[in-house]
Amino acid sequence: MYGISKKINSKMIWQALLLMSVIFMVFIGTAAAATVDENAAAIEKNAEDIAQNAEDIGVNAEDIGNLQTALTFMWLLLCGALVFFMHAGFSLVEIGLTRTKNTANILMKNFMTICLGIIVYWLVGWGIMYGADAAGILGTDQFMLMGAMDNATWNGWWFQMVFAATGATIVSGAMAERTDFKSYLIYTVLLVAFIYPVYGHWVWSGSGILTSGFLVDAIGETFHDFAGSSVVHSIGGYSALAGIMIVGPRIGKFKNGKAVAIPGHSLPLAFLGTLILALGWVGFNGGSTLDGNDPYANLVIVNTFLAAGAGAIMVMIITWMKTGKPDPSLTANGMLAGLVAITAPCGSVANWAAVVIGIIAGIVVYAGVMFNENTLKLDDPVGAVAVHGYCGTWGVISVGIFALGQGDGSMLADAAYTAAGAGLLYGGTAQFMIQVVGAILSIVWAFVISFIVFKIIDAIIGLRVSEEDEIAGLDVVEHGISAYPEFAILKE
Amino acid sequence: MYGISKKINSKMIWQALLLMSVIFMVFIGTAAAATVDENAAAIEKNAEDIAQNAEDIGVNAEDIGNLQTALTFMWLLLCGALVFFMHAGFSLVEIGLTRTKNTANILMKNFMTICLGIIVYWLVGWGIMYGADAAGILGTDQFMLMGAMDNATWNGWWFQMVFAATGATIVSGAMAERTDFKSYLIYTVLLVAFIYPVYGHWVWSGSGILTSGFLVDAIGETFHDFAGSSVVHSIGGYSALAGIMIVGPRIGKFKNGKAVAIPGHSLPLAFLGTLILALGWVGFNGGSTLDGNDPYANLVIVNTFLAAGAGAIMVMIITWMKTGKPDPSLTANGMLAGLVAITAPCGSVANWAAVVIGIIAGIVVYAGVMFNENTLKLDDPVGAVAVHGYCGTWGVISVGIFALGQGDGSMLADAAYTAAGAGLLYGGTAQFMIQVVGAILSIVWAFVISFIVFKIIDAIIGLRVSEEDEIAGLDVVEHGISAYPEFAILKE
Amino acid sequence: MYGISKKINSKMIWQALLLMSVIFMVFIGTAAAATVDENAAAIEKNAEDIAQNAEDIGVNAEDIGNLQTALTFMWLLLCGALVFFMHAGFSLVEIGLTRTKNTANILMKNFMTICLGIIVYWLVGWGIMYGADAAGILGTDQFMLMGAMDNATWNGWWFQMVFAATGATIVSGAMAERTDFKSYLIYTVLLVAFIYPVYGHWVWSGSGILTSGFLVDAIGETFHDFAGSSVVHSIGGYSALAGIMIVGPRIGKFKNGKAVAIPGHSLPLAFLGTLILALGWVGFNGGSTLDGNDPYANLVIVNTFLAAGAGAIMVMIITWMKTGKPDPSLTANGMLAGLVAITAPCGSVANWAAVVIGIIAGIVVYAGVMFNENTLKLDDPVGAVAVHGYCGTWGVISVGIFALGQGDGSMLADAAYTAAGAGLLYGGTAQFMIQVVGAILSIVWAFVISFIVFKIIDAIIGLRVSEEDEIAGLDVVEHGISAYPEFAILKE
Repeated sequence: MYGISKKINSKMIWQALLLMSVIFMVFIGTAAAATVDENAAAIEKNAEDIAQNAEDIGVNAEDIGNLQTALTFMWLLLCGALVFFMHAGFSLVEIGLTRTKNTANILMKNFMTICLGIIVYWLVGWGIMYGADAAGILGTDQFMLMGAMDNATWNGWWFQMVFAATGATIVSGAMAERTDFKSYLIYTVLLVAFIYPVYGHWVWSGSGILTSGFLVDAIGETFHDFAGSSVVHSIGGYSALAGIMIVGPRIGKFKNGKAVAIPGHSLPLAFLGTLILALGWVGFNGGSTLDGNDPYANLVIVNTFLAAGAGAIMVMIITWMKTGKPDPSLTANGMLAGLVAITAPCGSVANWAAVVIGIIAGIVVYAGVMFNENTLKLDDPVGAVAVHGYCGTWGVISVGIFALGQGDGSMLADAAYTAAGAGLLYGGTAQFMIQVVGAILSIVWAFVISFIVFKIIDAIIGLRVSEEDEIAGLDVVEHGISAYPEFAILKE
Repeated sequence: MYGISKKINSKMIWQALLLMSVIFMVFIGTAAAATVDENAAAIEKNAEDIAQNAEDIGVNAEDIGNLQTALTFMWLLLCGALVFFMHAGFSLVEIGLTRTKNTANILMKNFMTICLGIIVYWLVGWGIMYGADAAGILGTDQFMLMGAMDNATWNGWWFQMVFAATGATIVSGAMAERTDFKSYLIYTVLLVAFIYPVYGHWVWSGSGILTSGFLVDAIGETFHDFAGSSVVHSIGGYSALAGIMIVGPRIGKFKNGKAVAIPGHSLPLAFLGTLILALGWVGFNGGSTLDGNDPYANLVIVNTFLAAGAGAIMVMIITWMKTGKPDPSLTANGMLAGLVAITAPCGSVANWAAVVIGIIAGIVVYAGVMFNENTLKLDDPVGAVAVHGYCGTWGVISVGIFALGQGDGSMLADAAYTAAGAGLLYGGTAQFMIQVVGAILSIVWAFVISFIVFKIIDAIIGLRVSEEDEIAGLDVVEHGISAYPEFAILKE
Repeated sequence: MYGISKKINSKMIWQALLLMSVIFMVFIGTAAAATVDENAAAIEKNAEDIAQNAEDIGVNAEDIGNLQTALTFMWLLLCGALVFFMHAGFSLVEIGLTRTKNTANILMKNFMTICLGIIVYWLVGWGIMYGADAAGILGTDQFMLMGAMDNATWNGWWFQMVFAATGATIVSGAMAERTDFKSYLIYTVLLVAFIYPVYGHWVWSGSGILTSGFLVDAIGETFHDFAGSSVVHSIGGYSALAGIMIVGPRIGKFKNGKAVAIPGHSLPLAFLGTLILALGWVGFNGGSTLDGNDPYANLVIVNTFLAAGAGAIMVMIITWMKTGKPDPSLTANGMLAGLVAITAPCGSVANWAAVVIGIIAGIVVYAGVMFNENTLKLDDPVGAVAVHGYCGTWGVISVGIFALGQGDGSMLADAAYTAAGAGLLYGGTAQFMIQVVGAILSIVWAFVISFIVFKIIDAIIGLRVSEEDEIAGLDVVEHGISAYPEFAILKE
């Protein structure tokens, strides 16, 4: 029994050990299992919190998206307002540089240009420019914004609309003081409905022949006109060229084949108009980022005003050297020349290049005015063909020379809207070639179509007022009033 | 023994098995317990990270909230700036459409209107309009912004202040060329301090009689005047009506009971003023979203300019048909008519409706000017009663006709500030009824209170200058100067 | 056997119990171990999700940062546009208050001021003002923005550039109608390149002698000129004082030692200019927060216009009391006086203080104009010295009197750009002392350096046109044209 009892004893120790171990294990195991469950619950709680965080992040992201959109909306609404105000600037420049007897008429023409522009661009123009593409030539829907009535479209329409009427206003200036009011209105409707938006479609719709298709494939680069040196200014300028060729010079502009200066009646209004235009250009070029979040709007504005200043200074110097006196109205046109030229390249070139572009624009506008008047014997009271046509072309070409390009190492590597290719100065050739093609297309399109339209209008209605009416002045003849009825006006 | 030894053997195996199991279990258990602890720590780490994320999300959310607020602040500061500039527009339209001999006086009146407007709206007007409501009639605190000097109030005050002085400026135009300067200033103070803000309280305070209380309960809809066709323009227009009835027509305006045209002295200034006003309307209507994040500001602006263009074109056509010549100053008023009318409905109607509202505004302003002059024999040099009064009323009524409503299926389902009810065209009647009530209230309030005020001023100070002074011109009489001292002015 | 069999039985129960326990434990342990693994996996998944969330939060935060930057860019681009437009305002005020025969010349001077300003501030001015500091006196790099061509610098340059040319424009006004065009241009280049940016460096560069160094250490506070009462206006005003002392009064301004009024030729242009300037001040002061996210821009704008209104009203009252007639052009200057004065303190004072500052500015400008004309016998056609010089000094000093300070309890405790110290009225003295020092420095610097520059120009080129030319008018002499060639101008 001893052995057994000993055995039993050892067995009992074993058993106790085992029992305690098991009990210990049960405690540990149970505790562990409990903690595991707690952990699982905590993990689930974490997962829920994570999901909640993710949801909150999503809400934040959506709010951020809305803010980015709101910033763009605000930017384009305000920039569009500044561009709208340019119509006051164009009016003042034009009346300032012409005679009192046609002032009411010019004011009405410019005023109706924007009024008709609003309605016609809503009815037709926007659809032709941004509607569904047909063969890269024109758009075909969204007339009256049908099918696209949302806030983004309204925003885009507003900004594009204020641009659209500008082309016609440019034409108005060149043809001032002898053009029939009704004929001008008809032309304006056609320009806003068709002439402007067709070329605009080619450049800005994303599916036009200058940014996609065989031309682009052949040359290997897309045409770049940032804010409209060609789309707005060349189209207006070369349409004006066609117009003044057909309507002819004002009575008394050329005597014995020599150009005679016909001074404008109010230099203060001309200068105020010029400064309003420069103000408007903040919206014109700045807004053309089409994005309120794009930091490169700053480069755009800086380049714009560097060119404006350089253009004005250059013309002042030229007129000072040529005549011994700095000429105010040409100098004002020098600023506009710089602004028109920098409109295409402002987001694609270095600051020093903007200055150079402005200086050359000053030379172009002075030479252009002289060439038109003395060589072509054309009468353009405000210099619109030189400012908007020739400097517009220079601006488009200058992209092909000075563009920094989007590639590595460019200051503009991350700028969304800069010209894709580098200019001649930086070793590129494709960008230059497509710019030349685009410039030629704008000249040909605007000149030919406007020439045809003016010829038809001339044949049917008569483009020019009678000699008698021109001498009397369009204010009395067309509107039965005088712009300054209380002021004693000197006879010519 | 064999059995026993066998038993012992089997027991030992059991024991070994158990022991190994226990050891195994202890290992597993301990390992599991260790991992569980690690898990618990990891969970805690996760929880901490989650909390950190939540905190960061909160920081982002706060930043986003600040951005949304900053966007609204920026929007209203800039829109307010554009509305402020409308005072230049009103000045120019008014002097452009009147005679040189009263130009300095008109400039001073309009200039002091905004200067007094700033101070009086700070001292009194804002408190009457937006202070704690008393019986739905007027506000009773926040004079000098006391108790509310924070950035949100400053922002709101700035935007509301630039509106406040506009009513008086409208009155100034209608009563131009014969009203005593001091009397006008006193009236202006009363308008900005009391007349304007009381009606404004009814419509825009949120607790006025046109948006809550028995009228609204009875009709079942709240009055909607988005940016002030009634609050600003009707109040100004019908106050002006009372004014010109009491002050009487200018000497020479009516001969043998027939109205004689008294041409304005500067059409360029009148047109520049009109375009400045149109520019200002971007702020006037656009800012009235009171929210820089609201995408429907785009609809507001598009509708505003569609109506502006349509109004001008309509008046040009009417005057062309009636007289054979398109009339510039009436056409300019046609744009203002469209702008005034669309001010109430611009955020509540479709684009085509904006065009229709503008066209009808053109008809209203033309008919109104003719009716005032030829039937009522009233002299309103700038057409202010027709433009701001009649077209303001038309604008408020038009909401009740063309409003799309906020319900399902409306294009404006998610627009915060559109008219709540649908217009007559969309089957609603309550919105139309409350619009009629609000329109009548604005007419009655403005006309009656201004009639009384002008009568009292007339009795105490004299509302009109002497015949001799009127003929000499207010510039010399009231200010001792001439606006154009160097220019030869033709005798009438 | 019974005992044994009993023992065996009990042992078997034990064994069974143990076995079951172990099996149970294995199940639990295994299950626990499995769950632990699952937990670990879930924790890892959570951690991944947390990391993803953190990344998304980071993306959001970056987007938020970009939005804040974009808001600042947009704010300064648009505010800069408004300040640019002030050059139109200065032009119009200046021609409005002078004679027709010098109008083209004045327009050209002001136009070339901004054109040269753009180019010169790019070439030199910015570098002197904001380049790497040398001894707290001037900056030494970033000429042509070299080494700093990024969007933030372009943004800053644009806003600072439009300020820079303002000083010269102020000088132009005071010296109008008798100063040689070429001499003025040379002075303008020097002012924009050197005179303005040096003092600007002292105040706004962050490392200039008025915000760091021995002066600041001695007084214990930094100089505060929020938007340029001294930097822009005093510099312009006291430079103008030097200029008119050297160039002398216009022919006919003083007869027998008595000042003779030479009326300006167009009050409408003077008033339009004044309102354009006031509009521009929204950008001038509002933009000077240099942060599109700062809610205190609202206080800035409200204070700005309270002072503007108060200044104009005060001058109207003074002239009315003094002469029996409220004077329009002095009243317009009263608004400008209020605006100039509030430019320094607008972000540091209570609303009521802004009104008081404006009222005192009205007194200062009236007294200053009278003092200059009648006591000093100086001829300042537009009152530029009084408006910009004296009221600029008053504005800077007023900070030291009315500033609320940044400490606890101040309404402006969390405004980033308010004056650090409290003004005299709130128990502070250091802020007042440094303001006096800064004001004196601006007077001394501008007057002395400009006196020397004008003397040198006078010696080398001749500052003043000949008597004959002055009588003929600068338009014909300097530019060969007339500003109003068709209007009959009365002989003096």
